[in-house]
Amino acid sequence: MRSMTRQQRWQQFMDWPLTAAALIFLIAYSWEVIGDLDGPRAVVAESIIWATWAVFVLDYIVNLALATRRWHWFTRHIFDLLVVVLPMLRPLRMLRLVTILAVLQRSTGGAFRGRVVVYAAGASLLLVYVAALAALDAERDHGSIQTLGQGLWWAFVTITTVGYGDVYPVTPTGQLVAVGVMVAGIALIGVVTATLASWIVEKVSVQQEVEEAITRAHVETLTEEIRKLRELVSSRL
Amino acid sequence: MRSMTRQQRWQQFMDWPLTAAALIFLIAYSWEVIGDLDGPRAVVAESIIWATWAVFVLDYIVNLALATRRWHWFTRHIFDLLVVVLPMLRPLRMLRLVTILAVLQRSTGGAFRGRVVVYAAGASLLLVYVAALAALDAERDHGSIQTLGQGLWWAFVTITTVGYGDVYPVTPTGQLVAVGVMVAGIALIGVVTATLASWIVEKVSVQQEVEEAITRAHVETLTEEIRKLRELVSSRL
Amino acid sequence: MRSMTRQQRWQQFMDWPLTAAALIFLIAYSWEVIGDLDGPRAVVAESIIWATWAVFVLDYIVNLALATRRWHWFTRHIFDLLVVVLPMLRPLRMLRLVTILAVLQRSTGGAFRGRVVVYAAGASLLLVYVAALAALDAERDHGSIQTLGQGLWWAFVTITTVGYGDVYPVTPTGQLVAVGVMVAGIALIGVVTATLASWIVEKVSVQQEVEEAITRAHVETLTEEIRKLRELVSSRL
Amino acid sequence: MRSMTRQQRWQQFMDWPLTAAALIFLIAYSWEVIGDLDGPRAVVAESIIWATWAVFVLDYIVNLALATRRWHWFTRHIFDLLVVVLPMLRPLRMLRLVTILAVLQRSTGGAFRGRVVVYAAGASLLLVYVAALAALDAERDHGSIQTLGQGLWWAFVTITTVGYGDVYPVTPTGQLVAVGVMVAGIALIGVVTATLASWIVEKVSVQQEVEEAITRAHVETLTEEIRKLRELVSSRL
Repeated sequence: MRSMTRQQRWQQFMDWPLTAAALIFLIAYSWEVIGDLDGPRAVVAESIIWATWAVFVLDYIVNLALATRRWHWFTRHIFDLLVVVLPMLRPLRMLRLVTILAVLQRSTGGAFRGRVVVYAAGASLLLVYVAALAALDAERDHGSIQTLGQGLWWAFVTITTVGYGDVYPVTPTGQLVAVGVMVAGIALIGVVTATLASWIVEKVSVQQEVEEAITRAHVETLTEEIRKLRELVSSRL
Repeated sequence: MRSMTRQQRWQQFMDWPLTAAALIFLIAYSWEVIGDLDGPRAVVAESIIWATWAVFVLDYIVNLALATRRWHWFTRHIFDLLVVVLPMLRPLRMLRLVTILAVLQRSTGGAFRGRVVVYAAGASLLLVYVAALAALDAERDHGSIQTLGQGLWWAFVTITTVGYGDVYPVTPTGQLVAVGVMVAGIALIGVVTATLASWIVEKVSVQQEVEEAITRAHVETLTEEIRKLRELVSSRL
Repeated sequence: MRSMTRQQRWQQFMDWPLTAAALIFLIAYSWEVIGDLDGPRAVVAESIIWATWAVFVLDYIVNLALATRRWHWFTRHIFDLLVVVLPMLRPLRMLRLVTILAVLQRSTGGAFRGRVVVYAAGASLLLVYVAALAALDAERDHGSIQTLGQGLWWAFVTITTVGYGDVYPVTPTGQLVAVGVMVAGIALIGVVTATLASWIVEKVSVQQEVEEAITRAHVETLTEEIRKLRELVSSRL
Repeated sequence: MRSMTRQQRWQQFMDWPLTAAALIFLIAYSWEVIGDLDGPRAVVAESIIWATWAVFVLDYIVNLALATRRWHWFTRHIFDLLVVVLPMLRPLRMLRLVTILAVLQRSTGGAFRGRVVVYAAGASLLLVYVAALAALDAERDHGSIQTLGQGLWWAFVTITTVGYGDVYPVTPTGQLVAVGVMVAGIALIGVVTATLASWIVEKVSVQQEVEEAITRAHVETLTEEIRKLRELVSSRL
């Protein structure tokens, strides 16, 4: 373990516990929202959710304590603070699960563009599920989104920026979730387009690379020419 | 026929039979869905559909049997398996017809960007038709999409991500078709943008290429300089 | 006038007459549609429209007659044929007016990216107006689009792919116009994004260009080195 | 202060007054629109708005007077004239506040792509707020947008081109605001995509840069070779 700071060691140590907490949160939250729990079962689900929350709070506090440049770290992790503190943003903790994709990739390898596509697709699907849950939770009692199926349908229609308008959130919480999904949709269009653009630019620039290879060939011819000259001068003198 | 594997020979052999099966499927399925068949005619259409299905199943099984790295081939062709096995995804078999575009292109030639545009346009139009059929099939009895015209209109409104919301699917099957069309829409925006970006980047980079040509000219001046030097040294010594 | 084919001379000759015909068509068609003409005034407007149509037909026939590779020209101008022959596509003749932008640009100069942006903006605005007119013409009696204002609003909502769904076409002609506007919207997003991408890529690549300049500087140092060597050899020998 | 024109000195002098006027306008306009003011308080708010307007008018007139090429400046600043003259466009004066972002950036530094993203995000958020206010102002009495929350929700749904259609403007002023937001949405998609494309193209081109480094290494080897040759020739002769 080469010269890691204490904070880096902590982050490495917390990698799996945080992912596990996010997964447990995902299951407990899904159970609570889809099952529309009531009474003792709701207490169990809420307890599990609070327990996973404790893991995230602990991680945030320890990170802040270990950071060598505390204020710098704080200003760069406002988003983490909001996710930990605001109950409304708690579904975003599940996005931690995107790190599982990193592990899957590590074992299979893969080029940069391929990895970007896998991350974008994985994060989009996870976000669609998380947003469907969060919207269902917020909107159920207002008649707009009443089943998980409706939530998923709404999330897909929103993230692709189609927006039929047959289903849409009416509560402030639901609308905040929607804004997040819309922004993610813009980013998704961006990632898809950018990856395709990079690929097409590369294919088209093969001709350009051929010309650069010619330049390199010229330089090598030149080097060869000089080597011969040197041998000539050495032998004649 | 230089060193092809048995699987490659099989794929070459099945190229046209599969395309023909997709075409026959397209016609039979169109007839069944648009005509809203009933009684003996529905039996005929369904029989033809099952016969074309047999061709796809056969192709999948033989491919799996001939693959040198069977597990590798299997994991890369999960989508093919789903298309063959799930009745809900069967309209996707018609996408096989995109390969006809490859033949049209082969005879006319055409640069890389041109080919990407032709494929994207062809695949989009085919997908709009296929999605219109599939949505009509799924939605007809639910009042949302009742004619092929409505289906085509809905598919165009969806693939361009406009989404007026005058027509939208209400059944799970129709909504699954819609998600596919939306994702294709994102990809279509991506392809159009990326192709244009590649073209503009190329036009703008002419100046840059001119500068690279200057570098090459410098190297050539240099080579000439050394050649003269060599002659000088040779003659004087 | 260096070696122009007779067809090129014809096209140069018809440049302004066609633009004038498109402009007159624009005015007559606007008058007819916005004024919802009836009786003798409708006859006047229609007569003017038919007269401008004659100009386009004449141009198409003469072009076909003068083309050296007639079949080749025919297959590349199917779209022109459709615009001339199909009454439904006649509003597209006004797109000829985009050529006025070329004249405006010729007098002001301007770089490639700037010209792309001006063309895209000009063509989009013209298309919005043309589509609003065509949709108003087709939809007026069906209650969906009843004023030019509604038509323009609908065209803007459609070309930006927003698609609120408060106004949408219900007739086949109107829906065909809508499909054209949607496709133009996808192209518009593409042009805007591609132009921005080209600009950002260029700005970011300044660093790269600096490195290429360093390479050039190296080559020049090298040339200087050799020149000194040559002088040395010349003087000593 | 090196050789600035009198106009540049004026612009530097007015930098903060204009930003302050925009900020005061933002507050007064927000107060008037959100509070739906009536009676003496409306008079106060309107007076403040007219006072800030005077600052903008003064700046426009002085700029026009000081411009060395007056007509050239006038044609390039038609938009500024419209914003000053048309009451309908007055909310756009608040966009002046985007210049505050420039100050924030100046103190933190940051690369080109990062600055583009910060500007795009800042301008989008400001535009969403400004559009929400303007739409609320125009639409309140027509039943479509009645609270700031509804206005913000509508602006987000529009700038991301989702367009559910649950809220949409019905007055000409509101629809003009909407067209502005839609066009900004297209630009936003463009900026996000272009920035991502530039980033991916750069990451992918590392391989290419490595090859260029090899070329540079070749040239350096060559220079070294010649230096040795020169020493050899010098010592032996």
